[in-house]
Amino acid sequence: MVSLKDKDIISIRELTREEIELILKEADNMLPIARGEVYSDILKGKILATLFFEPSTRTRMSFETAMQRLGGGVIGFSSKEGTSIMKGETLSDTIKVVEGYADIIVLRHPAEGSARLAAEVSSKPVINGGDGAGQHPTQTLLDLYTIKKELGEIESKKVVLLGDLKYGRTVHSLAYALAMFNAEIGLVSPPTLRMPEEIINDLKEMGAKIKEYSALKDAIKEADVLYVTRIQKERFPDPAEYMKVAGSYKIALKILKDAKENLIIMHPLPRVNEIDPSVDVTKHAKYFIQSFYGVPVRMALLKLVLVG
Amino acid sequence: MVSLKDKDIISIRELTREEIELILKEADNMLPIARGEVYSDILKGKILATLFFEPSTRTRMSFETAMQRLGGGVIGFSSKEGTSIMKGETLSDTIKVVEGYADIIVLRHPAEGSARLAAEVSSKPVINGGDGAGQHPTQTLLDLYTIKKELGEIESKKVVLLGDLKYGRTVHSLAYALAMFNAEIGLVSPPTLRMPEEIINDLKEMGAKIKEYSALKDAIKEADVLYVTRIQKERFPDPAEYMKVAGSYKIALKILKDAKENLIIMHPLPRVNEIDPSVDVTKHAKYFIQSFYGVPVRMALLKLVLVG
Amino acid sequence: MVSLKDKDIISIRELTREEIELILKEADNMLPIARGEVYSDILKGKILATLFFEPSTRTRMSFETAMQRLGGGVIGFSSKEGTSIMKGETLSDTIKVVEGYADIIVLRHPAEGSARLAAEVSSKPVINGGDGAGQHPTQTLLDLYTIKKELGEIESKKVVLLGDLKYGRTVHSLAYALAMFNAEIGLVSPPTLRMPEEIINDLKEMGAKIKEYSALKDAIKEADVLYVTRIQKERFPDPAEYMKVAGSYKIALKILKDAKENLIIMHPLPRVNEIDPSVDVTKHAKYFIQSFYGVPVRMALLKLVLVG
Repeated sequence: MVSLKDKDIISIRELTREEIELILKEADNMLPIARGEVYSDILKGKILATLFFEPSTRTRMSFETAMQRLGGGVIGFSSKEGTSIMKGETLSDTIKVVEGYADIIVLRHPAEGSARLAAEVSSKPVINGGDGAGQHPTQTLLDLYTIKKELGEIESKKVVLLGDLKYGRTVHSLAYALAMFNAEIGLVSPPTLRMPEEIINDLKEMGAKIKEYSALKDAIKEADVLYVTRIQKERFPDPAEYMKVAGSYKIALKILKDAKENLIIMHPLPRVNEIDPSVDVTKHAKYFIQSFYGVPVRMALLKLVLVG
Repeated sequence: MVSLKDKDIISIRELTREEIELILKEADNMLPIARGEVYSDILKGKILATLFFEPSTRTRMSFETAMQRLGGGVIGFSSKEGTSIMKGETLSDTIKVVEGYADIIVLRHPAEGSARLAAEVSSKPVINGGDGAGQHPTQTLLDLYTIKKELGEIESKKVVLLGDLKYGRTVHSLAYALAMFNAEIGLVSPPTLRMPEEIINDLKEMGAKIKEYSALKDAIKEADVLYVTRIQKERFPDPAEYMKVAGSYKIALKILKDAKENLIIMHPLPRVNEIDPSVDVTKHAKYFIQSFYGVPVRMALLKLVLVG
Repeated sequence: MVSLKDKDIISIRELTREEIELILKEADNMLPIARGEVYSDILKGKILATLFFEPSTRTRMSFETAMQRLGGGVIGFSSKEGTSIMKGETLSDTIKVVEGYADIIVLRHPAEGSARLAAEVSSKPVINGGDGAGQHPTQTLLDLYTIKKELGEIESKKVVLLGDLKYGRTVHSLAYALAMFNAEIGLVSPPTLRMPEEIINDLKEMGAKIKEYSALKDAIKEADVLYVTRIQKERFPDPAEYMKVAGSYKIALKILKDAKENLIIMHPLPRVNEIDPSVDVTKHAKYFIQSFYGVPVRMALLKLVLVG
């Protein structure tokens, strides 16, 4: 029997397809509770610690809603400022203290590898809420859940990843997960921000079909899912270069006219200028419901890890 | 039937007298729960998001107590700092994300009109927790509730508004509400901080009796309620001028000797020097119970909007 | 009958031995709830306000867990920044407002005496969560509880206090409490940071046996408890002097080789360099369970003060 009881959730790559499917199935059970239609107190008396060494308001709030919708309580902090916990103390010591206060810990930390360190130290389960350039597994899980809910299945869907594919943690994790589910992966990015060769090779070894596009409009024509990410200005030495690139990868109504009927557009949010607000009212726009799906997915995780 | 189910609460002027009376009546039912004598779980499983883009510790804490006394949970943030939510994201996008996490949103924002924008965007009810120079309807509701509880009724009471009547959002909203209840309104302010003519005209059109006083002591003699507000130093180009004005509008024991037996003194708090602490022990001082009344009033609102 | 119902908890010195024993006994009842094995809702509907005018993440989080493990709710703030409550408002006014929102208040404030002031003003019980150079009674209570749990009793145990005994609030309070329980007190500190003569005289008058050691290794040989505290760099005019001192009071495996079999090492945390991490895996290391014991002790206090 697949079980996540008492397990740490550090990286999407450490989850098997069976474990991911268990989480997505459990998320379905959580949907009415996540919508506030039904109440559960399955986690009554349990405490979640949200240790956010850097702000991530979305991730923090959705975990806090998830815990409270299930009857549990929350402690923690939302940024390093306003806490005393860092006064020369090691992360390891902080975790050993907090495991005495809580039943499960969500850690957000700027340093890659910090979540794994925390998990090794802690006797209580640790969920990685994002560790710098490292992993953010619950983002990937909610991305997968969104595709499954909105398109019926993940298998064999064509998912086009758009934007900064070089540094984007989100798209790397998602690409690995999509490969596990035999989705087809399309890639569209500025030449200087292409998906790293080693990741492409990994994906191919996993049996994934990968296709790189030079033109956004070609990719959109074939896509079931268009996964848009932000291109950061800081990645470009020349602001003029950035402006040109950002403009040519912007999603607006015009470029969607050749899209499939059922194309869904996703975005990990916050968006800045990547998607024009006029797109929001189209049936393609799924980024806000994607954000909502973070709640049932995180409820599922909390439930599976804490009570099985 | 009057109902506030699923309604946004943006401005006191959009509430009818019947709706306000419904809230005040419901607040009465909430009193024993607000005092912690009785427990209710009528909002069990519901989530309130308190989105405070500027700090307002009183408003935030009283909403959080109100929600939890009724069995609900709370998520949110208490200032823009320590959140990531503003990273170039529009308020509209933030609201669309948060409506996926919560059943009701209280928004505090420095920009006038932001609460209305949030309400238009959100599928979940929005309560305005203060939007800059704009509205702060729950403050007005607790002011009305205080008058009703401490004097038996609002109708025909003489309420003297004291202090900065030009810029003071609190007194403008209160004046409109008092006019709805046929209270008489007295005005006392420094000449440069008089109530704007257009508001006085509005109030008169609503049928309100308005009287402006040049001397504080004349106003106090006739008042059932003395509503004191802060005069901000920043309003005066000359610090010496400020000192003079602040001094002549300060409430101390001496100036109260001609007050009516049942005069109540109110203040939206925090006070700085407007009321001498020696007044606190008199039977007139009602500003701390006024602050407490914010809890049953906000409980009433949460209940009426969420469950009807 | 000894009772703490509705009492303020400001200083350990105001508690009688009977009252302390009541708290420690109640903490035993709380242990399974603190561990999350059992759930209680004895404080359902009650609200704790955690007013932290300076950060103390450990104290705040353990109180918040304690309250929520017992079914209660929490409001408050974690630092002066991000609150509006200090805008020229007196602490007295803040407390009078917050007592309207909560059933019990934990105050952390940088100014000595502030907790007592709050208690005098408040109609609701106040627990001192640390007031500057003043008191921090719940730290002392959890220290006592740790000794009792790990050694069976406090009476007649030899407790060596190590580090900055001059300025260390924690060790002063603990020393008074140990004297009440007829423990023997050993003192080890740099010459410039010795326990103040007046405190030593007080302790002797209470009947305590005090012994000062010049060498750490002599003290360790005889100790049942080694209570390590931090020596702050700021106490030394000369950094070189600090380095020398800090080094000679550092606890590492080597210096423990002559320790008693059952020696327990305690530390109020955070530790910086006072205890080498290699000590953590020895049976002597009790500082993390000591930190956990803060939860049942604070649960006991909340229960005894709120419901008796």
